[in-house]
Amino acid sequence: MPYPYKKMTEEDFAYIRSVTSEDRVWVGDEIAREFYRDEMPEYGVFPPELYVEIENRDEVSAIMKYAYENNIPVVCRGAGTGLAGGATCKYGGIMLSVMRMNRIFPVDHKNQTITCEPGALLLDVQAAAAAEGLFYPPDPGEKTASIGGNVITNAGGMKAVRYGLTRDFVRCIEAVLPDGSIMNFSSNVVKNTTGYDIKDLVIGSEGTLCILTQVTLKLLPAPTCSCTLVMPFGSLEECADMVPEVLALPFVPTAIEFLERELIDIVERNLGKLLPVRQGEAVLIVMYDASSRQELDSAVEAAAEAALAHGAIDCCIANTPERAASVWAVRGGILEGMKADSVAQEECDVVVPRACIAEYVKAAKRIALSHGIRVEPCGHCGDGNIHTEMLRGPEMSDEEWKSATHASLTELYALSKKLGGQLSGEHGIGNGRLEFLEEFVGERMIRLYKSIKLAFDDRLILNPGKVIEFNK
Amino acid sequence: MPYPYKKMTEEDFAYIRSVTSEDRVWVGDEIAREFYRDEMPEYGVFPPELYVEIENRDEVSAIMKYAYENNIPVVCRGAGTGLAGGATCKYGGIMLSVMRMNRIFPVDHKNQTITCEPGALLLDVQAAAAAEGLFYPPDPGEKTASIGGNVITNAGGMKAVRYGLTRDFVRCIEAVLPDGSIMNFSSNVVKNTTGYDIKDLVIGSEGTLCILTQVTLKLLPAPTCSCTLVMPFGSLEECADMVPEVLALPFVPTAIEFLERELIDIVERNLGKLLPVRQGEAVLIVMYDASSRQELDSAVEAAAEAALAHGAIDCCIANTPERAASVWAVRGGILEGMKADSVAQEECDVVVPRACIAEYVKAAKRIALSHGIRVEPCGHCGDGNIHTEMLRGPEMSDEEWKSATHASLTELYALSKKLGGQLSGEHGIGNGRLEFLEEFVGERMIRLYKSIKLAFDDRLILNPGKVIEFNK
Repeated sequence: MPYPYKKMTEEDFAYIRSVTSEDRVWVGDEIAREFYRDEMPEYGVFPPELYVEIENRDEVSAIMKYAYENNIPVVCRGAGTGLAGGATCKYGGIMLSVMRMNRIFPVDHKNQTITCEPGALLLDVQAAAAAEGLFYPPDPGEKTASIGGNVITNAGGMKAVRYGLTRDFVRCIEAVLPDGSIMNFSSNVVKNTTGYDIKDLVIGSEGTLCILTQVTLKLLPAPTCSCTLVMPFGSLEECADMVPEVLALPFVPTAIEFLERELIDIVERNLGKLLPVRQGEAVLIVMYDASSRQELDSAVEAAAEAALAHGAIDCCIANTPERAASVWAVRGGILEGMKADSVAQEECDVVVPRACIAEYVKAAKRIALSHGIRVEPCGHCGDGNIHTEMLRGPEMSDEEWKSATHASLTELYALSKKLGGQLSGEHGIGNGRLEFLEEFVGERMIRLYKSIKLAFDDRLILNPGKVIEFNK
Repeated sequence: MPYPYKKMTEEDFAYIRSVTSEDRVWVGDEIAREFYRDEMPEYGVFPPELYVEIENRDEVSAIMKYAYENNIPVVCRGAGTGLAGGATCKYGGIMLSVMRMNRIFPVDHKNQTITCEPGALLLDVQAAAAAEGLFYPPDPGEKTASIGGNVITNAGGMKAVRYGLTRDFVRCIEAVLPDGSIMNFSSNVVKNTTGYDIKDLVIGSEGTLCILTQVTLKLLPAPTCSCTLVMPFGSLEECADMVPEVLALPFVPTAIEFLERELIDIVERNLGKLLPVRQGEAVLIVMYDASSRQELDSAVEAAAEAALAHGAIDCCIANTPERAASVWAVRGGILEGMKADSVAQEECDVVVPRACIAEYVKAAKRIALSHGIRVEPCGHCGDGNIHTEMLRGPEMSDEEWKSATHASLTELYALSKKLGGQLSGEHGIGNGRLEFLEEFVGERMIRLYKSIKLAFDDRLILNPGKVIEFNK
């Protein structure tokens, strides 16, 4: 068994420097504090023993081979924008940053793909595709995330309704296994039934199975026009009931989001961003992309008609880029607004069947209130992924906040399970949601996860203690 | 180690009868010969020791538990329409048919899904969706395949260009592990980052990791109209070069197929089905689905213009259901036509990057001819999955045919690998392509496949000797 891991020595440091470069290795107190944590310090702050910025896959392979032979944990890190406490050195060891490995290769027009290294930023990949008239649709909120991080966490985002998740755009992966082997999972082909589908297993594995060194992504022709509709409703139920009506239309929407009036007020009050619709207890925001004006007009007309037929108070059509931007600015300002409106936040990222959204949201509020916490559910109505944001009031002590959020989360996860939902829709397990996992998926599934982890990482050196914990 | 497996005894037969029913169990010579093989007897004919038709997941669980404890291999079988020699009892033991477990539950409109048991036929699932105005897009050639077989082999088909593969429509899976545990992989949610993505690993695993007992499938609103274009070209290269041009248009085609004149002649000569286009050495068939007439007209106009601008001799628009049917009848008649035109067939199902289709097809013909075999590549131009059909002439001896196909396949797979392709695009490995796998993916990948197999099936009792072979 790997525990305890080897405590790194000067000899280890020297070896890592020898296979990389003196000026790309930091040890002990030289390591910047930002690398102790991701965007959620609540989910753990851990100092690496060594921090190295690698430049190519051969360096990754050499480091992994050494770590494998010497029982040293390794954690791969991209931009550090994760929300699950995933990219942190829970058991010390090596933090391996891929942020210098950020090349984006020219778009392959014949295959309609783009290949890049894991440290490339999502926004740069999107821009490189757009510069060639193509479109990389996955659109999680954090545009400065690394593309490797997006792939290894299967990032979602608002446009998943129409286009799907990051997974749906990964053609192939080059990765290094814990023993240093360099592997290719699939190739630049549209389909593949050659052996087990390791590519899809690796996507979303949060850096616990292998380290990505290159990804090839599918692109689409860019839509030529888009339009956003805002539909205010008298109640949350009516708003949620509208979702299947929108999805039943023959036009696939790009995004379907919902906002309750309370949350709109928070954004307007704290950030001064105004939603152009004043009515309604809850609003549904629906976006369409299209390849022609006629197609777009047909979709918008059908959706507006359906809204009014199903109880919408109004249907505001934001048909200029400026109007649409004002709507999305409010949606995009939620996290910032809530931060300004509270002294701390905790979140739960459950996904429930779309049919259960209203039931979940109402029950979530009751649960949080019963523990003295204000909760603001918001998010992806089109896919049932409800970011349930808990807000700490100034009156709460640390202890009260901690115990109230823990009690709320326990109940929220149980509620999601009861409704046929899941523990996490897009943020992942990492370190932050680990304690809730076994209760959720059951003992046999945990054993299966462990077997899968061991199939890749028999010495448990890659991002140990994340997703699955052996050290008990 | 599991080998040799236990030879089944009367006691074992009695146990299986006791947990199922007397009238659903056959043993030894009572077992119909059709269950000795799938659609490709070339890939193995193996008698089961016991054949049982199960009715529910508890029976599956009880049988697996018993087989696990007694070292008896189990092979799950659907409709037996596989093309890789997958659903056969290579090491004897139990064949477990799911064909009585064929319930299709009412469409869930709010979640836009349909749930069914694995023995339901694809055509019945498609019809159940259509009856409710919805659409299950995966469309492999064999409509009488079981839906469980489609999921466990990740069936592809012609409409993959627009809609994707079976994988893309599987919301969740209920399955039984080799030790009898009943598991749920994901639930009826649109996205999920809760633990490892076992659902996607299981899809395409060809019955070697678990036995499906229920699947929930995503549906789409049905397109309201469609149109097929036939573009004849003077050469295969021009035809293949048209594919990226079609894909670059802002309208996503449903299907892109190609046919060479020689193959069209075979179908016309043997089946009397005539393609309405007489010109061209190679024709590209492009199909569009749309949600409105305007959208369809825009797509068809753009594609026709692009075709004529890129060297098409003509562009025939099959804009009535009858005309489109006559085109697709020729495409659909390929296998039957080739069977009528030769005394035996062997096939290779490689997938190559779309940019390499013409290069592959030309080289494939040279390779087969150099071994004295006629080859007819055809298939899915839109996704690079080229079914390379080898035809046996009446003059070839068994030995000549066997050695010529083996030599051709070896070179064809090497060619696919060189072009960045894969061994199988949609038919899978099963037993038939097993001997070519290690050469293709390498020794380290085989070890990884073995580790994954063992993570699920540590006693190697589930469909042993398929996809991966331990018995060496």
